[in-house]
Amino acid sequence: MTANKLQGRRIAFLFTDGVEESELTEPLKAVKESGGTPVLVSPEAGEKQMMRHADKGGTIRSETDASSADATDFDGLVIPGGVANPDSMRTDPAGVRFVLGFFEADKPVGVICHGPWMLAEADVVRGRTVTSWPSLRTDLLNAGATWVDGEVCVDGALVTSRNPDDLPAFCAELVEQFAKGARAAVSG
Amino acid sequence: MTANKLQGRRIAFLFTDGVEESELTEPLKAVKESGGTPVLVSPEAGEKQMMRHADKGGTIRSETDASSADATDFDGLVIPGGVANPDSMRTDPAGVRFVLGFFEADKPVGVICHGPWMLAEADVVRGRTVTSWPSLRTDLLNAGATWVDGEVCVDGALVTSRNPDDLPAFCAELVEQFAKGARAAVSG
Repeated sequence: MTANKLQGRRIAFLFTDGVEESELTEPLKAVKESGGTPVLVSPEAGEKQMMRHADKGGTIRSETDASSADATDFDGLVIPGGVANPDSMRTDPAGVRFVLGFFEADKPVGVICHGPWMLAEADVVRGRTVTSWPSLRTDLLNAGATWVDGEVCVDGALVTSRNPDDLPAFCAELVEQFAKGARAAVSG
Repeated sequence: MTANKLQGRRIAFLFTDGVEESELTEPLKAVKESGGTPVLVSPEAGEKQMMRHADKGGTIRSETDASSADATDFDGLVIPGGVANPDSMRTDPAGVRFVLGFFEADKPVGVICHGPWMLAEADVVRGRTVTSWPSLRTDLLNAGATWVDGEVCVDGALVTSRNPDDLPAFCAELVEQFAKGARAAVSG
């Protein structure tokens, strides 16, 4: 990755307790190494418990409440997985509104694993092609998406992946999309 | 509860690792105390890790593989919650078919918390009224259900509740429905 490809770009990471550790820390590292500025956003700022599958991992401090965050202040968004993470976040209206803002502005969004539940909640997958952890397939189809099984799925400015094994492809594509920036129209 | 109200009734409990402990053990106790015979079913039989919210609880041995279980051998079904439990089970086609069998025969089914994801997966909530853990609301609406916020929701032979606090009402209603048995027609 080019060290300054994301120079001046502010990328939001939206997560809470239960987030899958590598799905947060790997994209975070990719954004930093490309010169971008990551900003950690949660329904409520504070220390969050990360998970390594079913076991507790490290903790990380989120700095911004979703209710005081606005998509207009960012150039892109990452939503990591971990089953309990989006399951909790989708009940927070401020977090869901925050996600919606990126789609209204056609800004690049990367979502992995269980993260796409937030897309179903924000009702932004109708007519879009996505992948996810396999358990979300039916929920995403019912939310109007076309679901595919692939390492990384790119539909306009929306990048989705299935699980931690997909992180190298997911991170590389994220950096490309964040460098490209918002676009006027996204094809379905 | 009457000690022999469920005499001769075999009630399946479908769950796997990540099941919310009280949502399995309390209905199990209610069925036993009413004279019923509980049978523990999982995608794969064996020792399963129960959870107390985000922390590990006790373990319990499941005795029957879902692939060798058939709804025709049972008088009722219970699906407990715990976010990781149905999230895992819904990717097991045998478990989903097992659930479907109860609905095809209009047999009583009790589902609590995150358990209703299994109903979305089996596509059996279209036109039905249900409750659940709040995060499932959108997925259940998208699956065709009417979603209500109540301690216990009874729609024909389908009993749903929201969380462990609802267990007293949930267990009492379950025993009533299991005693009543299968019915010919269930109104939507």
